[in-house]
Amino acid sequence: MLIDEGLELLSEAEAHDLLARGEVGRVGLTLGAMPAIFPVNYAVIDGDIVFRTAPGSKLTAAADRTVVAFEVDDYDRHDRSGWSVLAIGRSEVVHDAGITGPALGSLEPWADGNRTSVVRIHPEFVSGRRIVHAPS
Amino acid sequence: MLIDEGLELLSEAEAHDLLARGEVGRVGLTLGAMPAIFPVNYAVIDGDIVFRTAPGSKLTAAADRTVVAFEVDDYDRHDRSGWSVLAIGRSEVVHDAGITGPALGSLEPWADGNRTSVVRIHPEFVSGRRIVHAPS
Repeated sequence: MLIDEGLELLSEAEAHDLLARGEVGRVGLTLGAMPAIFPVNYAVIDGDIVFRTAPGSKLTAAADRTVVAFEVDDYDRHDRSGWSVLAIGRSEVVHDAGITGPALGSLEPWADGNRTSVVRIHPEFVSGRRIVHAPS
Repeated sequence: MLIDEGLELLSEAEAHDLLARGEVGRVGLTLGAMPAIFPVNYAVIDGDIVFRTAPGSKLTAAADRTVVAFEVDDYDRHDRSGWSVLAIGRSEVVHDAGITGPALGSLEPWADGNRTSVVRIHPEFVSGRRIVHAPS
């Protein structure tokens, strides 16, 4: 299905699958009345997007009980191909004690420091797009 | 300068330089009362972030005369290194007739279709972060 010239809508299953396989995504939210985007390394656990943050950080405060956007994408500059998935949902800061199982490893923050807060985003809407090129 | 454990603040010059050298960035804005993030291929022209969109698209409408976030980043999963730059500024939809010079080529949309609208973001705030690892 073409949603825009040159962009194809992914199936919901495909979008969920790409979201589940991603490693680095970007959180979009409002910070002090201004829009902001922060990259995080994340995992999908029981259908929720989960990442660690430092307690007391600006991101932690902004992400607690608000509706946020979460985006993951991949591009190849050589053949100008690429896809992106956008998830929207309510986020909540929780304690990491609730996170168990094999996903724990992929949640380990890439940045050093005391990142013991966990943000969980429950995605209500997940959609994906892919660049399509007409056969030349 | 450490802004958060494990994250170092880039100098403003460094942040501007990384922004100017990027190819794909992400626009964060509000779309129908919901936060959204869209990837675009872009160029920096006379200090402004510029990308093409399709006239009449949802992104075009949402980006006209609003304050938006724009993010660019790069990561290496193997050594868990990476940086990101966040720009915030007012965006405006203009006609592409105003765009001239060598930057025209890098503005060519990766997706096919009629992308003759141009969005220009004049960044008022530009900041950057880099993951730093303590020597082990």
